[in-house]
Amino acid sequence: MHNPKDRKPRPRQPEEIDASSLLEGRNAVAECLRAGQDCDKIWIAQGARMGDIIALARKCGVPVVECDRRKLDAMSATGNHQGVIAQAAAHAYASLDDLFQNAQEKGEAPLFVICDGIEDPHNLGAIIRSAETAGAHGVIIPKRRAVGLTAVVARASAGALAHMPVHKTVNLAALLDTLKERSVWIFGAEADGTVDLYDADFAGPTALVIGSEGEGISRLVRQKCDFIVSIPMRGKVNSLNASNAAAVLLFEAVRRRICGK
Amino acid sequence: MHNPKDRKPRPRQPEEIDASSLLEGRNAVAECLRAGQDCDKIWIAQGARMGDIIALARKCGVPVVECDRRKLDAMSATGNHQGVIAQAAAHAYASLDDLFQNAQEKGEAPLFVICDGIEDPHNLGAIIRSAETAGAHGVIIPKRRAVGLTAVVARASAGALAHMPVHKTVNLAALLDTLKERSVWIFGAEADGTVDLYDADFAGPTALVIGSEGEGISRLVRQKCDFIVSIPMRGKVNSLNASNAAAVLLFEAVRRRICGK
Repeated sequence: MHNPKDRKPRPRQPEEIDASSLLEGRNAVAECLRAGQDCDKIWIAQGARMGDIIALARKCGVPVVECDRRKLDAMSATGNHQGVIAQAAAHAYASLDDLFQNAQEKGEAPLFVICDGIEDPHNLGAIIRSAETAGAHGVIIPKRRAVGLTAVVARASAGALAHMPVHKTVNLAALLDTLKERSVWIFGAEADGTVDLYDADFAGPTALVIGSEGEGISRLVRQKCDFIVSIPMRGKVNSLNASNAAAVLLFEAVRRRICGK
Repeated sequence: MHNPKDRKPRPRQPEEIDASSLLEGRNAVAECLRAGQDCDKIWIAQGARMGDIIALARKCGVPVVECDRRKLDAMSATGNHQGVIAQAAAHAYASLDDLFQNAQEKGEAPLFVICDGIEDPHNLGAIIRSAETAGAHGVIIPKRRAVGLTAVVARASAGALAHMPVHKTVNLAALLDTLKERSVWIFGAEADGTVDLYDADFAGPTALVIGSEGEGISRLVRQKCDFIVSIPMRGKVNSLNASNAAAVLLFEAVRRRICGK
């Protein structure tokens, strides 16, 4: 669903600290605690109302330190700490088997999102958030030419990252072959697709491939797709923002799974 | 579709210049020219490949000036000028009648998006982009407690702003009364809605109300909604990013209008 002219340079960010070290904002910290993820320490700004987070932290045995808001400002990588930062243990990437197991445990046909070179951390975070709310079983990202799980991604995911297994692969094309061997249908989303969104059958084992903001889906990955699906474009602009396209596809999959045809 | 805890302070931006003065980036400038909007001058970075834009500008009689990329960097409000900035004439807000006329000219039941206090310019831009691609007939924003049509919004809309009439109102609640008098059904999107997304009939004259990132839909506006619709949440996180929620609602409206039930 991307216009090649719509190249979007990676936005300027404050230094991105890996999500392995810091989690920022109410939702991100609370969801991390609720998900039972390891957390070493929590800093809270003096005077901030954090009763719910303090109670959660106590329950999980995580020490809470009150400090001057300016200390949080200095630590913050996102500029959006909302008065709370947690030092979380490393965000472990999941194996591909973890993703399949997640689907199996829920007794559902796998629903995966593959991000082919998403470089904007806000978009990746929003995609992880939409995937989690849509009940997807995992997100797959490539190691190269893409943003990883930074603090900005964790913050933009509004806590969803704590609940969503993310698999990182060095070879996306080879991974698609593996998915096919395991009976997953690969649907790429592009403006020039041959299948209309509302004709695509997302009820079976499904992987949705979202291309990068600038380049769309890469050539090799596109060749591996079983179907190229198009979201109907009824205006003059011919592409959606990457995370918005992902949300539309994911909730069409939800509709198919809830309502059938 | 918003979690009250998910308060998102307005991101720090470089100074926001009103879209009335500057348009940045390939898409924004090209779409402005294609839409026949008034444009006073275009600056292009030396060495940038802009043949398509230069040809368009010539066709529209707009002078093009080559300059050092650093000059563009200094002018840029978005940090994302991609080598081209246009001085556009004022982006005129549309009247409510313009929005209805847009629908009438297309022979379609009106489809409007109402942004109730969206403060993040990237979200507003993405919503305008999704609305345009979904064939909506207008976007309505309030004058207070919300971002206006800044250069960041224009850039994030990827050119869609040039094609999408935007009406700005000082009194959103009164405007909803006017819409109702003109037979438009008002659908608010919230997590605790009483109507399931896939049961909502968006085929008739429809206004979709999207709440702010932090607060959701304001109390008074919510009271005026005919229906409160919920996107099914199948994960642990209970809300979508505002622009992703708007995209899901808009394309469910598209599906209803294309496929019927």
